[in-house]
Amino acid sequence: MKAFHWPVRVYYEDTDAGGVVYHANYLNFMERARTEWLRSLGIEQDELRAQQGVIFVVRAVQVDYRLPAMFNDLLQISARIVAQGKTSLTIEQQVLRENDQALLCQGEVHVVCLNAEKFRPCAIPAGLLKTIIQGEE
Amino acid sequence: MKAFHWPVRVYYEDTDAGGVVYHANYLNFMERARTEWLRSLGIEQDELRAQQGVIFVVRAVQVDYRLPAMFNDLLQISARIVAQGKTSLTIEQQVLRENDQALLCQGEVHVVCLNAEKFRPCAIPAGLLKTIIQGEE
Amino acid sequence: MKAFHWPVRVYYEDTDAGGVVYHANYLNFMERARTEWLRSLGIEQDELRAQQGVIFVVRAVQVDYRLPAMFNDLLQISARIVAQGKTSLTIEQQVLRENDQALLCQGEVHVVCLNAEKFRPCAIPAGLLKTIIQGEE
Amino acid sequence: MKAFHWPVRVYYEDTDAGGVVYHANYLNFMERARTEWLRSLGIEQDELRAQQGVIFVVRAVQVDYRLPAMFNDLLQISARIVAQGKTSLTIEQQVLRENDQALLCQGEVHVVCLNAEKFRPCAIPAGLLKTIIQGEE
Repeated sequence: MKAFHWPVRVYYEDTDAGGVVYHANYLNFMERARTEWLRSLGIEQDELRAQQGVIFVVRAVQVDYRLPAMFNDLLQISARIVAQGKTSLTIEQQVLRENDQALLCQGEVHVVCLNAEKFRPCAIPAGLLKTIIQGEE
Repeated sequence: MKAFHWPVRVYYEDTDAGGVVYHANYLNFMERARTEWLRSLGIEQDELRAQQGVIFVVRAVQVDYRLPAMFNDLLQISARIVAQGKTSLTIEQQVLRENDQALLCQGEVHVVCLNAEKFRPCAIPAGLLKTIIQGEE
Repeated sequence: MKAFHWPVRVYYEDTDAGGVVYHANYLNFMERARTEWLRSLGIEQDELRAQQGVIFVVRAVQVDYRLPAMFNDLLQISARIVAQGKTSLTIEQQVLRENDQALLCQGEVHVVCLNAEKFRPCAIPAGLLKTIIQGEE
Repeated sequence: MKAFHWPVRVYYEDTDAGGVVYHANYLNFMERARTEWLRSLGIEQDELRAQQGVIFVVRAVQVDYRLPAMFNDLLQISARIVAQGKTSLTIEQQVLRENDQALLCQGEVHVVCLNAEKFRPCAIPAGLLKTIIQGEE
């Protein structure tokens, strides 16, 4: 399956006094890439909630930090499904430095589809799942 | 009128690659102090919304940055009403460094009371206003 | 003078439980636009520090919040110099909603040029100032 | 071994438009608890850097999100060493809701000791390690 890529520029807001991107902020970058990956498939999360009554929430994350990103770096954030269940998706995400393609950070994000009212897991709507899977092929 | 004070410790999350607290984050510190100042008067903002149907939103801010706060600094954030209208309050806030009481940052925050459903300005409930004003005396 | 514009998409990280963009985060958006505006003129802030020994820091901000930005909104953030001194620049910034050009937020940001070692105000290097002023014409 | 606990209040800055704490922000809470746990043992990270030339950086995290924290919740964040190497520590961290002790979130954070100049792994200074281990007993 192909991975989706989304560019992210590092601004001062993303860095900390260590001079590098603060570790929690890579999760923001990964979420931006997931949002844009869904958008590239025609899926808007606010419409998903309003029209189909479902939201995706993060149930677990696993992140390995290899090399630090610095202020002004241009990054590429990838997103690629590596597992799917009836109610969940596991997405592998990489943070690459644009200029030399160095792998800075790698993560796995497990998201669950919830009924937006009851906040309980529910099956990913069939049409939605099809769009996501086909977009990956 | 007396000012309320709330301690805030500077963590890595608050700093940037310049080695100091990132300018936008002082607004977070000020909001924490406003929240705790209301709590000290017995006002919980989630109950305010649920029971009286109103929320306070920030309509304008003005901040002067004098000296930088650094990682690990212990700060004191003050909140003091300097003006009140039917639907709004203006709160003066200072960020002091605990160990020498240096004034690092000073701001004025204008908040407006909104009907939580319609998102339109409405009068600050009389009982609430009384509690706030008396708490300041 | 022409204003520079930079697109910013609103992600979950930018919003709060009120359902709208958290007020401090507009300062992040404005900083991204200032960074990209300088970049569009060929000015990289990390090179500026390494080669000319100067940094720009925010000395004061003034922001009026008019209408809330929501999750998924596409915004345009402008930057335009409205005043300049020997050591400082005042930049007017607007946050517009892309689809209807509604003005959501307006700010004025006062930045000061500092010697990166001593953290003291210094004159904006002549070549740099010329580049900035000409870029605005 | 005993776990250290640190209280964290949820403010608007921590929440997102889903009405709950944004997933990346639990990493901030965990870092605050690690910082305060070291401080409770007499270890200040800025002194560690200045005097011993070492810093701790996050090399990997693993987080399970079980129940959402909401605006105004008072949380307790724990920190407890579960593994140690020559250059690294693995810390288990839990996020508990104060009023009913519900486990909202659980994580494992792997930190590495780096030479602050070269940014390369180095042995945790013996005195430091002793202080940390004894503090846990």
